[in-house]
Amino acid sequence: VSEVGEFGLIDVVAGMVAAGEKKGEAWDRLIVGIGDDAAAWHSEPGIQLATIDALVQDVHFRLGMISWEELGWKSLAVNLSDIAAMGGLPRYALVSLALPQNTDVRDIVLFYQGMLTLARQFEVAVVGGNISLAPVVTVNVAVLGSTKGPGGRLLKRAAARPGDKVAVTGSLGGAAGGLEMLERGLEFDTESTAALRRAFLRPFPRVKEARILVTKGVKAGIDISDGLVSDLSHICEASRLGATIQTDLIPVAQSLNANFGPKAADMALSGGEDYELLFTAPAHVVEAAATALEGRGCGVTVVGEMTLTGDTAVTLLDENGQEFTPATSGWDHFGAEKHGA
Amino acid sequence: VSEVGEFGLIDVVAGMVAAGEKKGEAWDRLIVGIGDDAAAWHSEPGIQLATIDALVQDVHFRLGMISWEELGWKSLAVNLSDIAAMGGLPRYALVSLALPQNTDVRDIVLFYQGMLTLARQFEVAVVGGNISLAPVVTVNVAVLGSTKGPGGRLLKRAAARPGDKVAVTGSLGGAAGGLEMLERGLEFDTESTAALRRAFLRPFPRVKEARILVTKGVKAGIDISDGLVSDLSHICEASRLGATIQTDLIPVAQSLNANFGPKAADMALSGGEDYELLFTAPAHVVEAAATALEGRGCGVTVVGEMTLTGDTAVTLLDENGQEFTPATSGWDHFGAEKHGA
Repeated sequence: VSEVGEFGLIDVVAGMVAAGEKKGEAWDRLIVGIGDDAAAWHSEPGIQLATIDALVQDVHFRLGMISWEELGWKSLAVNLSDIAAMGGLPRYALVSLALPQNTDVRDIVLFYQGMLTLARQFEVAVVGGNISLAPVVTVNVAVLGSTKGPGGRLLKRAAARPGDKVAVTGSLGGAAGGLEMLERGLEFDTESTAALRRAFLRPFPRVKEARILVTKGVKAGIDISDGLVSDLSHICEASRLGATIQTDLIPVAQSLNANFGPKAADMALSGGEDYELLFTAPAHVVEAAATALEGRGCGVTVVGEMTLTGDTAVTLLDENGQEFTPATSGWDHFGAEKHGA
Repeated sequence: VSEVGEFGLIDVVAGMVAAGEKKGEAWDRLIVGIGDDAAAWHSEPGIQLATIDALVQDVHFRLGMISWEELGWKSLAVNLSDIAAMGGLPRYALVSLALPQNTDVRDIVLFYQGMLTLARQFEVAVVGGNISLAPVVTVNVAVLGSTKGPGGRLLKRAAARPGDKVAVTGSLGGAAGGLEMLERGLEFDTESTAALRRAFLRPFPRVKEARILVTKGVKAGIDISDGLVSDLSHICEASRLGATIQTDLIPVAQSLNANFGPKAADMALSGGEDYELLFTAPAHVVEAAATALEGRGCGVTVVGEMTLTGDTAVTLLDENGQEFTPATSGWDHFGAEKHGA
């Protein structure tokens, strides 16, 4: 960083953003991007969404395990996933990067390349941020989103109803498998290695899938960042309901099943950071949503049910319908926790 | 932190926000606050503003020098000032707090007390955020604002015109004096000590004053975070103009003049973090704005002029109209730099 100074860095970032494609509603509405005291755009009718998330070196990632390009991608992806989990479209991103003095400018360029590649796919405009010094790399990204139009509907944690089916998109546990592979230096075939690494370091937010859920009438949802059990318990608490999970139904990631044997099922149950959608709705709504998503190549699996019980616990059932306690107790993605946005 | 766990902390914060007063348009429009994947509100017609800023321990502050309550206040204040610098009204705040494992929960409560006290004054709703671990205290706050209504006008760095007068609100250098007092353990009379400390650690963002500037027809402005010369040079670069400052006209903070002698003028010229407004407009517009602001007890001082020159440099003139170079070369608030929001 010290080579070019911080103003130099800002110019580099502004130049990268300026050189990129500027397609879509966010760019069309933009009045002031990077280079003033705040970003400014013509507001969109409907509901505005906002979220912020932090990735801290040696807490959420290790520089030896993630490339700068992947770090840029993932920092934005986790926030896009939060907007998706509300049923919204991401529009604008602000990026606060805190870096050690000796950070190489080329690494920052790679970071932004990764982030801007993902941003372009969802027509998200990176419109500002700041760069400061810090003892460890700390990335904070805030994303603003929209439900588009005045009739905008939301996916809320608090909207589950008793009898709702509990369903998930895609497959689970890949990110946990990727973490374990990288931390323990495990060696698998090329395809598995790539799939597990991608699942953990380059998650693809389910923005379009969430929009389809909303149009099909789904009202309750969350993204799986803490793990299936943990995130379902967030829905339970917010909706004041219980839930059951039929653990034999959980869609375990193929690369996980192939390489982690009997541990795979537990990892799919408790592993976090898959950024799949977890949603609840009456059976016929889930069916309609599943048909629509499967038409786009995204699987949907019913894994359980919302229940009217005294407490808000998640009950795990084995293939015989018997309650059981899993071997692992939950996902510790080194200590981060969200509170609401 | 480890005493109550991170979910416990989130509950503490949510409880503090819930217990506070919820008055004003931001709260009225709010649909989902703390406790879901993202905050959601009914969007406001007009222009939407967004900014993010970081305060990193031992880079922007030292825990021995700032109280937790002041840290909470200042983390929000610097962002409100950025919204003010665009002529907007702050509406919503997202708070990302990264803390060492051994942080005392009572300190986090004090942090939020400081922040919520300021938020209430401007009817800003704290609607989400996250808490993670980190080796040092790192605060990131993102603030969303509005220009209120479809005819909303902005203060932009790029809107200065040749011949515009350059003016500042309030007085300068108090924050630099406060920093020096605290860092060097200087002892002054009670009143000066309080004023200097407050200027540095508890800045009051000029939100209402900026709105008045806009209604009086001012179009170009910035807040003074890096220092008068540095921030005026941002306006120069964005507007592709030069500027002169008549240094003898600079309104030096009283507590600075009283205690720092001949150094005071240089500190007012180059010291940052005063969070006063620096704006440019034709003389009659500045006059009308000054009259309106002075009616509210906020002084306005013309300190220079925008000029049509070959480069975008800021030229300093002494009391005889002679160019000179100041003793200090600029404010180093330990290395932070903004890029646009």
